[in-house]
Amino acid sequence: MNIDKLYDNVETKGHVCVGLDTSVEYVPPKEREKYSNDAEAVLAFNKALIDATHDVSACFKVQIAYYEEMGIQGLKAYSETLKYIKQKNSLSIADIKRGDIADTAQRYANAHFSGEFEADFVTISPYMGMDSVEPWLKEAQKNGKGAFVLMRTSNKGMRDFQYLKFTEESSSTRLYNIVGNKMTNIANSNTGKHGYGIFGVVVGCTEKEEAEEIRKSYGSLFFLIPGYGAQGGAAADVALLLQNGNGGVVNASRSIITAWKNEKPENADNLSAAQAARKAVIKMRDEIREAIK
Amino acid sequence: MNIDKLYDNVETKGHVCVGLDTSVEYVPPKEREKYSNDAEAVLAFNKALIDATHDVSACFKVQIAYYEEMGIQGLKAYSETLKYIKQKNSLSIADIKRGDIADTAQRYANAHFSGEFEADFVTISPYMGMDSVEPWLKEAQKNGKGAFVLMRTSNKGMRDFQYLKFTEESSSTRLYNIVGNKMTNIANSNTGKHGYGIFGVVVGCTEKEEAEEIRKSYGSLFFLIPGYGAQGGAAADVALLLQNGNGGVVNASRSIITAWKNEKPENADNLSAAQAARKAVIKMRDEIREAIK
Repeated sequence: MNIDKLYDNVETKGHVCVGLDTSVEYVPPKEREKYSNDAEAVLAFNKALIDATHDVSACFKVQIAYYEEMGIQGLKAYSETLKYIKQKNSLSIADIKRGDIADTAQRYANAHFSGEFEADFVTISPYMGMDSVEPWLKEAQKNGKGAFVLMRTSNKGMRDFQYLKFTEESSSTRLYNIVGNKMTNIANSNTGKHGYGIFGVVVGCTEKEEAEEIRKSYGSLFFLIPGYGAQGGAAADVALLLQNGNGGVVNASRSIITAWKNEKPENADNLSAAQAARKAVIKMRDEIREAIK
Repeated sequence: MNIDKLYDNVETKGHVCVGLDTSVEYVPPKEREKYSNDAEAVLAFNKALIDATHDVSACFKVQIAYYEEMGIQGLKAYSETLKYIKQKNSLSIADIKRGDIADTAQRYANAHFSGEFEADFVTISPYMGMDSVEPWLKEAQKNGKGAFVLMRTSNKGMRDFQYLKFTEESSSTRLYNIVGNKMTNIANSNTGKHGYGIFGVVVGCTEKEEAEEIRKSYGSLFFLIPGYGAQGGAAADVALLLQNGNGGVVNASRSIITAWKNEKPENADNLSAAQAARKAVIKMRDEIREAIK
């Protein structure tokens, strides 16, 4: 089961999930001009980043929006990026936030758990209900794939819907709790060897006041944690969302893949940019390890 | 503004939105074998369907999951299908249900409001909050594009989250009402010439007990209505979601594009299948027109 592999990667390589939200503007200019199209430049940069960080990170999250923006060529680069992550024996999270029902969900599961866009994990949006999650689960049970369902995200707009309180349960129950409860039901009957369910959830590290409560309430759920750095989350906030030093991976994208812009950007090439990314990953990894001591 | 064009199409061509959820199994077998890959067979079938139905339908909804399942070739067919709909002077709804924040939402908006995957409308999932809707709105304001945000969908799982009641407002307020309220705010400051907002919502015709209340509460929102036929909705249910004979389009996919299977399937080719689809569209169009008399 991929969730077990992810747990093991956290133990040996740390908590960092490298976000390949790779826009062509993030590629060093002198590399960009070598390629006839943006997507090829992005792919070459991604490969350099993966080479330089796969041994110090738990996994890679590939945000498909950046590739869809580049059209068919972009989706080829997306596909090749996923294959390269597999080749390096790391794990990929396809950040696709798909959410649709029945036969359509099945088609999405076929699309992203096999074939050209095959990934180890996907992200899923739960708004349509549990029948938009179940077809993914059925597929995942066959082949050990995993998923992270959006629970409490790290953006401001999270308060618009996820944060609302319900009458049906106790007065402190928010929409995100109901999602967490339903995902716990799934986890409890689909548990890996380290005690985490086959599907986890997305929980941002930006609202630390309830982090401890969330971690305690959803002990069987592995967390994909956005919001580190640029969005205001710190290592101490992340620590509240972990348990026994594991149970979550922490995504950072721009702070890693554009770290080269803080050095001598005019000299940067893919190799030096990837080394800057590696340094940023190691720094983040060590900050988180320090915070959970 | 596309929402005005859609209104006009409903007036002149009826309420039917033809769903091109085209799996290769829906293509007549004797046509399938002409093509070396599934995606090309699907594209040729789509073109025949568009030719035969664009003058009796308001628009086409293209469900991207069916194309993602076929990989890069599938997305080429998706792109070509959208272009063909434009060429025939009809309107396309890209049923992509994307939902992500800030810069990522902007990338998605670039991807689906311009370039190879350009569509007239998209569908959006609101779970992450209004900052996942606003970047689309900003783009749409520039170029007249439109969107339908998931409000109350037609599947069973709709009851898992969309149907929950909140403490913060009156006790009858459900999650879908809060989405509707926020979309009404957008509509009120971005209104087309027929009184409908630039962005509408998805409202299934499967829960008729509250259809009248929904129509009355959200008078400025144009509805994309799934659930007709296979999912149990009838013309009388649809009528409750319309006002003055307009204000919504009604999607049907399989009942139209596989109508040929009810005739002599062994003889079917794209031309005869498209004619069967045309008959199904006209029947549905007339049933709805009859119900709103």
